This record gives sequence, structure tokens and C-alpha cells, in this order.
Amino acid sequence: MFDKGILLIISGPSGAGKGTVVKELIKEDKYCLSVSVTTRKPRPGEIEGVSYYFRSEEQFEKLIADGELLEYAAFCGNYYGTPLKYVEERLAEGKNVILEIEVQGAVQVKERYPDAVLIFLTPESISDLEDRLRGRRTESDEVIAMRLSRAREEVKLMDKYDYIVLNDLVRNATSRINGIVETEKYASERNKDFPSKFLSEKGVD
Amino acid sequence: MFDKGILLIISGPSGAGKGTVVKELIKEDKYCLSVSVTTRKPRPGEIEGVSYYFRSEEQFEKLIADGELLEYAAFCGNYYGTPLKYVEERLAEGKNVILEIEVQGAVQVKERYPDAVLIFLTPESISDLEDRLRGRRTESDEVIAMRLSRAREEVKLMDKYDYIVLNDLVRNATSRINGIVETEKYASERNKDFPSKFLSEKGVD
Repeated sequence: MFDKGILLIISGPSGAGKGTVVKELIKEDKYCLSVSVTTRKPRPGEIEGVSYYFRSEEQFEKLIADGELLEYAAFCGNYYGTPLKYVEERLAEGKNVILEIEVQGAVQVKERYPDAVLIFLTPESISDLEDRLRGRRTESDEVIAMRLSRAREEVKLMDKYDYIVLNDLVRNATSRINGIVETEKYASERNKDFPSKFLSEKGVD
Repeated sequence: MFDKGILLIISGPSGAGKGTVVKELIKEDKYCLSVSVTTRKPRPGEIEGVSYYFRSEEQFEKLIADGELLEYAAFCGNYYGTPLKYVEERLAEGKNVILEIEVQGAVQVKERYPDAVLIFLTPESISDLEDRLRGRRTESDEVIAMRLSRAREEVKLMDKYDYIVLNDLVRNATSRINGIVETEKYASERNKDFPSKFLSEKGVD
């Protein structure tokens, strides 16, 4: 059966707990995080090829022009993007590559790479989201109001995603995501070579 | 989240072990088998509404005309079909309804009911299939040759299916099918009411 990795895009409202869920997933060897390219200057302790790939603006624009980015965006005067080559190499090794990006980026990736699986990670309701944001005790009422208003817009774009995963408990969310990855590997779309393997001496491995 | 049942179509070559896998699945309360309608006469011990719905040819043809069958076929001079109403009622109760039918029927169902999930259950290779058929010690070489030749044709129709499930071991096959059903319930296609639930007081249940 399908033995490559799956490209998993995880998006969701700020406060949905994406960071925690992703951290939990990549404890398992079968997952890895994509390493982004950026034009931002390295901060102390950041390592080239681990934290980010650090590139000049000129180099970054060449990557765009050459179609070597799965998606990119500008943020606070810097570019951030996902290098196609890095992702493809990990997938070929059988690693499921996780990209934690926003809706716009997710849609870009799906266009470039239709095999990507788009997951919308979300609390059960807007009031749960508010509780989570308040529970952090790090954000002002104003910032919280802005994030809630943004979440109301983001949830409307849910139909761009393949799956909706509730993050009621981190262990539930990760087990749902593990199930999605497992199931996607049986999709007939990913096993077009099945008939020829089935008919060969060796069969399906 | 989605709390209806899922209509599961299970097909696969003769000898793939569909019967055993289905028997194992329906031990769990969340699955049920569809009850077919037929024009065949009841055999001793068969119960109306449990074994089959027994109908006259005239009644059966009216069911076809009224669009009340999900699929039907004629076999040995009798009609066999799947009643839409029975399936819809079980799905509404949250039961996953299993239909064990052939490729032609599976394609008919998917047209009528696109939410159906089509599973192709298969051994790992044509030679595994041959071993299984020979292991039964009930069929002549001629019948085995005919089944293998048919399997070679069936596997080419695999792209009509959503998933390919290997039946290497019955417990592996059932666990894969359980995973597919679970994962399908998170599909955004099945949760189009999610945004309105998310924004409501109550949230998603």
C-alpha cells in the first residue's frame, strides 16, 4: 500500500491549541515539522536548516520565481515560505510532514499539491475559544475581541478543509489526526498502482 | 459533529473474505447489515424483514419505478435490491449500514447516494487469492480459474472505490474499516452545519 508520507496542513483559530497538538504529534517519529524559509534575520540560538532556512530577499524572490515554494506570505516586512524540495524529500522518506499555516496559505498549498490533507483544528464553540484565550491571561480584552472576530471569519472558510478536528482534549485531537493519516493511506487515489501490484508475483507490500 | 450513520459499501473479489469481515463488524452495535428486497420465494426459516423483504415481481417493479431502491440486480431469474427507506432510517438512527454488493451495484449506489463510502476489500495479491480459494476445498479447478479471471477484471475497477482495504488478517481489516468510518465522520463535507453550530451558544455536540 501507499508508503510515502502525507502532507498535513493544520490551521485553525488563534487559541485553538494548534501548537500543543503539533508538539504532541511530532513526538512520534512518523511526523516531522516543515522547516520554513525566511528573509528574517536569525535570532541568537536559531540554526540554519533547523529553525529556518535564512535567505536574502533576492534569494527568496528567486525561489518564488522558480516555483520552489509551496506557499509564501509576507509578514511584518519579512517573507516566510515553505520549500517544496524539503517537503518532497521528507514525504519520499515516508514522514508525514506537518505545516501549521493560515487559511490563505493552506489554500495555496492545496492548489500546488492536491494530495495535501487540510485539517481545521478548532474548539467546540466560539465561547470555548473565548475561555481558552482568557485562560492564557496574556492578552488584553482588545486582542481577545480581535481574535474572536477573526475566528468568526475563519470558521466560514471551513469548506476549504478536508477534515474538522475538535480539540476538546489534546489526546483526542492527536488520536483523530493519527486516524486521518492512517485512513488517507488507504484512499484509492493514493494507490493507483494497486492493480498492477496485486497482479504481480510479489503482491502489495 | 456528524452523528448520523455512514453507508458502507463493501465489495471485493470472491474469496477476499468479505463475509467474515462483515460478520465481525456487525458484532458491534454501531454497524448493521442492510436487509435486501427480493422476488425469490422465502426458504424455510427465513423471516420477512430480517432475512429479506419478500415481494412479488409486480411489487418489485413498482419499487424500481418509484425510485425506492438504492440499487438492484437480477440474478438467476429473481430480483434483488436495496430499499432506500430501510437504509435511510438506520442511518438517521446513527447506525453505519453495510451493503455487501458487487462493483456494478456499488457504482449505482454512489450515483444515487454520493455520501456512501465504497470499500474494496482484497487480499494482497492474485496468488494470495488463489491460495484462499484453494484452501476452501469446496470449488473445482474450473470454478477457481473463473473466479481468478473475474478478480483480474474487478481489480481494474478499483478507482470507483474510495478506499482499498487489505484483508491480510480479519482483525486488521476490521480495524482499518473502523478507522475509515471514524475518519469519515470528521470530513468537512459531512459537517456543513459546523460553522453555525460553532457560533451558537451551545457549540458542537
